[in-house]
Amino acid sequence: MSYARKIINDPVYGFITIDHPLLLKIIAHPYYQRLRRIHQMAFAHLVYPGAVHTRLHHSLGAYHLMNLALNELKQKGFDISKEEELGAKIAILFHDVGHGSFFHALEKKLIANVDHEQISVLMMHLLNEEVNGDLQTAIDIYTDKQPKRFLHQLVSGQLDVDRLDYLSRDAFFTGVAEGVVGYDRILKMLVVHEGELLVEEKAIYSIEKFLISRRLMYWQVYLHKAVVSAEKMLVNIFNRARDLILNGTELHAASSHLDFFLQEPFSSNFANNIERFARIDDADVMYTLKTWCDSKDKVLSTLCVGLVNRQLLKVKFQTQHFDLNEIENKCTEVAQKFNLSAHEASYLVFTGEAVNTMYNPFDERIKILFKDGSTSDISTIDNPLIHHQFSNPVKKYYLCYSG
Amino acid sequence: MSYARKIINDPVYGFITIDHPLLLKIIAHPYYQRLRRIHQMAFAHLVYPGAVHTRLHHSLGAYHLMNLALNELKQKGFDISKEEELGAKIAILFHDVGHGSFFHALEKKLIANVDHEQISVLMMHLLNEEVNGDLQTAIDIYTDKQPKRFLHQLVSGQLDVDRLDYLSRDAFFTGVAEGVVGYDRILKMLVVHEGELLVEEKAIYSIEKFLISRRLMYWQVYLHKAVVSAEKMLVNIFNRARDLILNGTELHAASSHLDFFLQEPFSSNFANNIERFARIDDADVMYTLKTWCDSKDKVLSTLCVGLVNRQLLKVKFQTQHFDLNEIENKCTEVAQKFNLSAHEASYLVFTGEAVNTMYNPFDERIKILFKDGSTSDISTIDNPLIHHQFSNPVKKYYLCYSG
Amino acid sequence: MSYARKIINDPVYGFITIDHPLLLKIIAHPYYQRLRRIHQMAFAHLVYPGAVHTRLHHSLGAYHLMNLALNELKQKGFDISKEEELGAKIAILFHDVGHGSFFHALEKKLIANVDHEQISVLMMHLLNEEVNGDLQTAIDIYTDKQPKRFLHQLVSGQLDVDRLDYLSRDAFFTGVAEGVVGYDRILKMLVVHEGELLVEEKAIYSIEKFLISRRLMYWQVYLHKAVVSAEKMLVNIFNRARDLILNGTELHAASSHLDFFLQEPFSSNFANNIERFARIDDADVMYTLKTWCDSKDKVLSTLCVGLVNRQLLKVKFQTQHFDLNEIENKCTEVAQKFNLSAHEASYLVFTGEAVNTMYNPFDERIKILFKDGSTSDISTIDNPLIHHQFSNPVKKYYLCYSG
Amino acid sequence: MSYARKIINDPVYGFITIDHPLLLKIIAHPYYQRLRRIHQMAFAHLVYPGAVHTRLHHSLGAYHLMNLALNELKQKGFDISKEEELGAKIAILFHDVGHGSFFHALEKKLIANVDHEQISVLMMHLLNEEVNGDLQTAIDIYTDKQPKRFLHQLVSGQLDVDRLDYLSRDAFFTGVAEGVVGYDRILKMLVVHEGELLVEEKAIYSIEKFLISRRLMYWQVYLHKAVVSAEKMLVNIFNRARDLILNGTELHAASSHLDFFLQEPFSSNFANNIERFARIDDADVMYTLKTWCDSKDKVLSTLCVGLVNRQLLKVKFQTQHFDLNEIENKCTEVAQKFNLSAHEASYLVFTGEAVNTMYNPFDERIKILFKDGSTSDISTIDNPLIHHQFSNPVKKYYLCYSG
Repeated sequence: MSYARKIINDPVYGFITIDHPLLLKIIAHPYYQRLRRIHQMAFAHLVYPGAVHTRLHHSLGAYHLMNLALNELKQKGFDISKEEELGAKIAILFHDVGHGSFFHALEKKLIANVDHEQISVLMMHLLNEEVNGDLQTAIDIYTDKQPKRFLHQLVSGQLDVDRLDYLSRDAFFTGVAEGVVGYDRILKMLVVHEGELLVEEKAIYSIEKFLISRRLMYWQVYLHKAVVSAEKMLVNIFNRARDLILNGTELHAASSHLDFFLQEPFSSNFANNIERFARIDDADVMYTLKTWCDSKDKVLSTLCVGLVNRQLLKVKFQTQHFDLNEIENKCTEVAQKFNLSAHEASYLVFTGEAVNTMYNPFDERIKILFKDGSTSDISTIDNPLIHHQFSNPVKKYYLCYSG
Repeated sequence: MSYARKIINDPVYGFITIDHPLLLKIIAHPYYQRLRRIHQMAFAHLVYPGAVHTRLHHSLGAYHLMNLALNELKQKGFDISKEEELGAKIAILFHDVGHGSFFHALEKKLIANVDHEQISVLMMHLLNEEVNGDLQTAIDIYTDKQPKRFLHQLVSGQLDVDRLDYLSRDAFFTGVAEGVVGYDRILKMLVVHEGELLVEEKAIYSIEKFLISRRLMYWQVYLHKAVVSAEKMLVNIFNRARDLILNGTELHAASSHLDFFLQEPFSSNFANNIERFARIDDADVMYTLKTWCDSKDKVLSTLCVGLVNRQLLKVKFQTQHFDLNEIENKCTEVAQKFNLSAHEASYLVFTGEAVNTMYNPFDERIKILFKDGSTSDISTIDNPLIHHQFSNPVKKYYLCYSG
Repeated sequence: MSYARKIINDPVYGFITIDHPLLLKIIAHPYYQRLRRIHQMAFAHLVYPGAVHTRLHHSLGAYHLMNLALNELKQKGFDISKEEELGAKIAILFHDVGHGSFFHALEKKLIANVDHEQISVLMMHLLNEEVNGDLQTAIDIYTDKQPKRFLHQLVSGQLDVDRLDYLSRDAFFTGVAEGVVGYDRILKMLVVHEGELLVEEKAIYSIEKFLISRRLMYWQVYLHKAVVSAEKMLVNIFNRARDLILNGTELHAASSHLDFFLQEPFSSNFANNIERFARIDDADVMYTLKTWCDSKDKVLSTLCVGLVNRQLLKVKFQTQHFDLNEIENKCTEVAQKFNLSAHEASYLVFTGEAVNTMYNPFDERIKILFKDGSTSDISTIDNPLIHHQFSNPVKKYYLCYSG
Repeated sequence: MSYARKIINDPVYGFITIDHPLLLKIIAHPYYQRLRRIHQMAFAHLVYPGAVHTRLHHSLGAYHLMNLALNELKQKGFDISKEEELGAKIAILFHDVGHGSFFHALEKKLIANVDHEQISVLMMHLLNEEVNGDLQTAIDIYTDKQPKRFLHQLVSGQLDVDRLDYLSRDAFFTGVAEGVVGYDRILKMLVVHEGELLVEEKAIYSIEKFLISRRLMYWQVYLHKAVVSAEKMLVNIFNRARDLILNGTELHAASSHLDFFLQEPFSSNFANNIERFARIDDADVMYTLKTWCDSKDKVLSTLCVGLVNRQLLKVKFQTQHFDLNEIENKCTEVAQKFNLSAHEASYLVFTGEAVNTMYNPFDERIKILFKDGSTSDISTIDNPLIHHQFSNPVKKYYLCYSG
């Protein structure tokens, strides 16, 4: 008896089983292996030292939850063919393959005219050629062209396995026990109704809890002061680098592939340069930051030394805009202290908004299927037990400054 | 009321409390922050994707266990002064500070005449100057010059908090549930007897279990085929690089600091170059490997591409030496396949020993304190319940080859 | 070196250390040991089979959290004497000692003129005589007569270790992962301000999460339909038994001590009968229920057989009062089906309210200490991030009926 | 779409799914519900307060592992029909249904001529009639009459799901982290070879670990001094009761069903009295012990008071027989102290053997399937890595005495 199976240990779920040769092939591909060298949570480990898990690990975890979800739905009698099953598994494995290193921070700086989902699609198409079209169903599911929409919704929707995994995984590796999500209960409550993915009525508390956990993770982790500071420092490092280059200074990223995008971002022919992109990972960025610690440009070296050695800019949060005078005063102070121009100081003192869009009812919805067959969105349930404020995006303003 | 305290989330232990300004100062130092950029388990994540935790995280964990151990001993009435307590905490924080990136693989290749513990001492002395001698007690404990030997044994001994943490942490992040160690029970059983660290009699099963877990972790994790393969590939990459350089080929590491040691290893004046050393981390090594993927030297590029994309050499283990003919045949095969010389092929086909020295009774000992006040080493206990074979170092031979 | 210490394994916290002879003495007392034979969650195990933990286990857990809380406060420099420390530990060990078997269900039926906290105090006084007054500080803390009010608040308040433990423990043993409380984080954020227990500002999210977890546990566990049904069946069993006795039927509880209270509840001299009370546990109640399965009274036997064999009354919840006609119809149906009078049927069809009083701002408060030294109640914080509805007690009406 | 499914929370495995009406019917049966009122670990909770989980909970856990095992085998392509699958699930649900309350202690005292597995079969046959023969496959599997022997081996064998669950569950609820078993890894390594259940080669370390964990659980938990003491006290309580009855003393168990077996044990027509047996649970035994606390017989009351209030006999363990003089001296001492005859004192001072038969190679075997298709028993593997001593049953002698 012969069978191609690989079992992978995962501290979050125990074991992840890979049970098809095509899945093994995809995982072995350099596009996929690259995810191994990209932190899922960027610089969050500066606050939560355990949060060094990788995008590859998250991708495998989401794949595992997809397996659980498909098994539940099949056991409940919903029709899913072998081909659709494999397609959904591939789609979720690949959902993040186009993610760049420190993408949330760098995406808008270096490769502005494509987003990471478009890059994922590009890469899937390239890989599809290598495997003679075997990824077509996966691509259809990923791009929402498959008639069974619930398969796409498992990959990308309000309750998709992507979110369920990253919240679970991020809570696990940060050690923020309160962020734990009852993913298994939610998965067991999934149903298909008129081709869409819904949850059964008795999942209401679990979903409410899921939304609350997500909110807690936003404020306590993703938007933690030091995490925001590190992310904004990284953005400003590349802003400054671009600024210098545009002003004619000779400046290079230590990594040649990263340098290509730095010298000429917003390139119209991104698709032609995808192989370059596919070779960039956290090592390219980190090594570049380390070399720029010795840059002659004081702004650049200050920011890089700070980020590398975890001497972060200070951060204040408040619910109103910061007073312009306060910002200007801080800026002047910093300009004097480091002997910088006002423009230069603006890289070390700046403000912006941090938004936690936990659940946007105008966007996609979490629909509940009641025992009587009716459905409604969780935000509109006529039940005093459900908070109605979920839909309010909450905004805070931050001020970063060299302390 | 004012107090300097920092609380760090840790998925393994919950919370780690840093409660002294000197500790905060040490942790903030670039020497210490560098550990954040070095994987604790090198390439083990190629098999166990969760195993990407850092040396900094391990160091904080060992520090936490030191806190627990000291509290237990103090509660039991053993005399430990405030200064000794702080010293022991600093000593454990610093115990790994001299660890290089991928050190187990690279130590003998690049910096042969000093080991990482000597480097730790060097760094502690340098830092001691910065803080006007406040680290002296810590240094004495680390170097076993403190009269209360048990403090040193907590830092470095058969049951030190270093081991207790790395076994616990490695089991946790790999997801190998069976490697879990009852660290808390062992810590609660520690006693001091004639100045030495012992464990109470009722800890016997826990310690036996600790030794078994360690053995399991060795064979299942540390000496996993793919982990051994990756480590040996890394060694051979730097062997090959040195080989080329000695033969006059112009070859550089992408990282200038790493290149310094590559061009001139075994330097007699390591102490003078410690600042260079202190700036090398995994990014230097990984980025170098990635650039060498494009090397003209076929051996170097083959190994680097393989290691970066996880196309590892195959590995066989056996309890006897491998047959020389078998090795030679494989070698010839590989030489032909890749059009290499026999010498070049020897980087892709090679053999060696993997040794699991779980517990060496001739070395340091785990001593048990019995209720009647007598003591004996766990390996000599006259008790049919304790296995006597713990002391046998177990050896396996491996054969790595391009498959 | 001699020390009286006992270490107890606890799946929730790892190890619990008992470190004083007086504590060991109290735990060994039959009053305390009785708690070992009383389920913490009564019949919740009919839904959550793991929820069979005992009041003794909860009491030890709360004691452990008290240790952690006191250590945190001492480390932060708040003054707590050895005597106060021991007193607070004893007070929490004893806080539930007056709990009867299935008390939430039976308290009002059998021993109406004293509540379990008064019984705890009675028992503490009795025990205090046995140990020559050594419990006085504990009694003062328990009864809020100790000048340092924060000690009492640790035993009984909005954030007391009693709640932190029972929520943690109940979530653990039911397996409701979403009910998990970040007890360790909350404990680390405790401070004393003007003699009162407060939490630091940065605990806000953890406390919000604590309140949400509590709400989830209420609706998903404590007020789960089947749990409510079982509890109400037990109440009606004893209601029916009393009814029969008052009408002159000879009916006895199988347990003589339980029977004493059954024949003559609301006794004015409860204090004289405390030794009887102290010998009643779940076995008395369960064995009585099992013998009444064979009662000639059909109502009694129906309810007992149902409760023993888990054939529970059906339950409906709704937010409005149930329609009287609906109830009457059901009642008539049941009366006919089982050949019962309307009065008899009312033991099998009945309605009532289930209330979740998560957080009552008019009662005790959770106060936050801000960095600037100001304080406010969490429910009044001017912060869009905190939900303002915490204070609404939420009510549901239930209808139980024989299905 | 309609489906009969019930989901049960389990702190050990997360969720257990019951997915067939026949399974729901069996679980709802009073025979099965009785297991809810029997502690899995008898008096182990006197040492490990969390160990109050029930036989019902264990049975559900074993059922869950059976599901996992069957899924693995089916995924690997082994042929298992729907009927066999359901049969195996029922067989494991019922495997313990014949267990009596405190059976390990009482079995030989009260119902000597049948063992609990025979009782389970009796009960299965009775239930089979109620469901028109639908349990036949389950009975065949349980009694090893099913041609696919591996199904029986999953229910009862060296690596059956019964053991995997009870070790996992007992380790979990006692909080003995070191007893944790890698059940999921072992289940993933199961294969069928020539109709028998084997494990793949790469499971070797996990199985070795499983055996070690089992040993640790034996010595640290199952044969813990206080646990042995409580068990032997219970045995002696019933020994003494029988002794009194045989000598003409009027003595009754408080429970009438228990009393039936007490007055006339070893009844030849056990099958006729199975309904009595099926109504006995821990409440009958505990309530009887509590009433006997007031017995006029000093031996009986001493033992009962001791067991109820956790004032246990002292225990000594040693590897040799205890010296007869030592025993006799203790006996005399106790006789004088309590004013007892020598015979009476022998209930309070006695000796015996505690045996840990971890793995008996002559009995059933754990067979390994190697990659080359060969098989061998784990105890005979020619591999220095596997300890050869597993097969030695280890024996200790105990002496219990009133201290």
